[in-house]
Amino acid sequence: MHEDLRRNNLATLVRHLHFSGPLTRSQLAARTGLNRSTVGALVGELASVSLVSESAPEPQGAAGRPSLLVSLSAQRVWALAVEIRPDALAVARVGLGGQVHETLSQRRDWKAGLTPVAAVGTIGRLARELMSRAPAGSQLVGAAVAVPGIVRRSDGFVHLAPNLLWHDVPLGHLVSKRLPVLSDVLVANEADLGALAESSRGAAVGCKHVIYISGDAGVGGGILVDGSLLAGRSGYAGEVGHMKVNPDGHRCRCGGRGCWESEIGAAAVLRRAGRRATDVPAAVARVISDARAGDPVAMQAVRETGRWVGRGAANLINIFNPDVVVFGGALRNLFLVAEPVITRELRRQVLPQAGTEATVVAAGLGAGSVLVGAAELAFSDFLVSPKTAVAAGV
Amino acid sequence: MHEDLRRNNLATLVRHLHFSGPLTRSQLAARTGLNRSTVGALVGELASVSLVSESAPEPQGAAGRPSLLVSLSAQRVWALAVEIRPDALAVARVGLGGQVHETLSQRRDWKAGLTPVAAVGTIGRLARELMSRAPAGSQLVGAAVAVPGIVRRSDGFVHLAPNLLWHDVPLGHLVSKRLPVLSDVLVANEADLGALAESSRGAAVGCKHVIYISGDAGVGGGILVDGSLLAGRSGYAGEVGHMKVNPDGHRCRCGGRGCWESEIGAAAVLRRAGRRATDVPAAVARVISDARAGDPVAMQAVRETGRWVGRGAANLINIFNPDVVVFGGALRNLFLVAEPVITRELRRQVLPQAGTEATVVAAGLGAGSVLVGAAELAFSDFLVSPKTAVAAGV
Repeated sequence: MHEDLRRNNLATLVRHLHFSGPLTRSQLAARTGLNRSTVGALVGELASVSLVSESAPEPQGAAGRPSLLVSLSAQRVWALAVEIRPDALAVARVGLGGQVHETLSQRRDWKAGLTPVAAVGTIGRLARELMSRAPAGSQLVGAAVAVPGIVRRSDGFVHLAPNLLWHDVPLGHLVSKRLPVLSDVLVANEADLGALAESSRGAAVGCKHVIYISGDAGVGGGILVDGSLLAGRSGYAGEVGHMKVNPDGHRCRCGGRGCWESEIGAAAVLRRAGRRATDVPAAVARVISDARAGDPVAMQAVRETGRWVGRGAANLINIFNPDVVVFGGALRNLFLVAEPVITRELRRQVLPQAGTEATVVAAGLGAGSVLVGAAELAFSDFLVSPKTAVAAGV
Repeated sequence: MHEDLRRNNLATLVRHLHFSGPLTRSQLAARTGLNRSTVGALVGELASVSLVSESAPEPQGAAGRPSLLVSLSAQRVWALAVEIRPDALAVARVGLGGQVHETLSQRRDWKAGLTPVAAVGTIGRLARELMSRAPAGSQLVGAAVAVPGIVRRSDGFVHLAPNLLWHDVPLGHLVSKRLPVLSDVLVANEADLGALAESSRGAAVGCKHVIYISGDAGVGGGILVDGSLLAGRSGYAGEVGHMKVNPDGHRCRCGGRGCWESEIGAAAVLRRAGRRATDVPAAVARVISDARAGDPVAMQAVRETGRWVGRGAANLINIFNPDVVVFGGALRNLFLVAEPVITRELRRQVLPQAGTEATVVAAGLGAGSVLVGAAELAFSDFLVSPKTAVAAGV
């Protein structure tokens, strides 16, 4: 019992440092409710396995001896974060504390399609390269994969990833086999992971009601209700991209017509700009930069897309009364150039009560929300019992 | 401490009888985890204040002496449930156990409007009449009001009820003043209360993910996520009626255009049937019965409305992955005649995973969901400490 308590206290300390960054012993005592001598003993114990170190903070010009700051040893423990997108595969080494140390990625021809076997092969190769480059003495404690699709969390089974053209793929199993060093590779929906990352250390810190909308090829939603991810009966919730908003709209990859995704996704931007491309994400980025530079057709395409972004976001605000709506992925770039149009349309469509309460922002972690979220998921087991995990050399 | 425990056990027993109906002592023991002698003592204590009675069940033809059934004395304790609708005010005496004993209502001319003062006056008059007719020895233990609008639960403040044309009405305060016998009249959104009632004792019993859609003049949603009402940051969540589904649609009372409400509400049904009416709900009911009788224009109006019902419900299924979608209020009647059209359109628009999991049904409590839900809310304090409340003669 005493041993359990000590283990919990160690874990609590590590979690505070993980989510808040370096803290003094006094701050740790205040935030955890533990007394200073307990905090001192715990810090010592964590230092003995090189999980934390103490150092003097940057001089602040104040009088008196500065308190030492307890910091996680960012390179000591890391997670392998994987992001599968139609146009690219990325693997990252993310340190405890959420810092992305290194990312390896491989761009792909979106139109060429991507088989699960090919994806897993590339992930395996990139991951091994990343692992071989990790500093000596560092320890990999978990891995997680973000997928733009409908995922069963328990075993990482991908029911459907329309923009990858994947159907019933046992991805967790496939990746775990390819990376035998890891016992259990977790798989989750990319927008759910974006929401997790943004609420842990991005634009939605401190918010309990969060709508994270990611839009690359597809449009997905990660939704926090009262601090918990909205999963629904079987984890299929959050498919905001397939909210029908336009009965006269274009055919969507899901088979429906006039989905939000077919009004604000990459294909819609290119269609409105009158462009065709094989490298779709690059072409979308070009439309956005052309709009910023004043190209009238590109501006018109961005504006029209922005109006649809605002309409759909208004629906979600009316339904969820959130604290914040966060735009991630390619929608983040669109938001940054079309914010006035998006918010004007949104304000026009939203009910006043919920509307005035919701802030609408770009993802605070930039393009990295999903990878950071995957690392967050990969760290979750470690954070329950960090010292045991390190001692066991996971 | 011992006293607290006993009080909790009494409350647990009463809650089981309230939600499940009559149970034998053995069943009570099995469901509460208490031993039989404790259950016996508690039943005796509740019987001493006439909250429960024991009686032989209907003969079942089986051998042996039948177990006695413990039942709540349905007339002993009751709640005052109030429903405010644009076309009618209703007050009901609802017994512990959820049975509606008596309802008094007053129909109104919807178009004439209804001021808060007039509504509260009528509610007061109807409530006093109902109270005077309650059986001798019965006890009123709580009151709650259902409103088709956006309500702050803490004090019953109605921010906006568009179909009543109400804005910033301190309804909880007004009704409490008018019914001085009650210390605290609760106010809640009608769709939230419908969801509560249907999941407690209607078509969604045992479901944790429930979407209840009520549609009379307006269209509201009461949504249970993992067993809890979706409230959002300030209780404004659930405004599914103002989900924009048709950019070319009609102007809505909220000021927007093409809201789901303006496609499936009463006005839409009449518009499609080419009818005008002052008594809107009666006229809608007539369109539905004419459709059932084969009138082609009415059938067409019902079918077209049904398609929009299906489209919006599909959006909600994609977003929430619920166990069940329940149609209440006037939408229940529409559902009963247009079910094939609604489900066909819904299946066409929904993603397969969430779609196959969600059942779509009419409210199990008929037109009474909202009143029963209001009673449920009114009973909530009583159910925490039933014997104390009865002994104190609330």
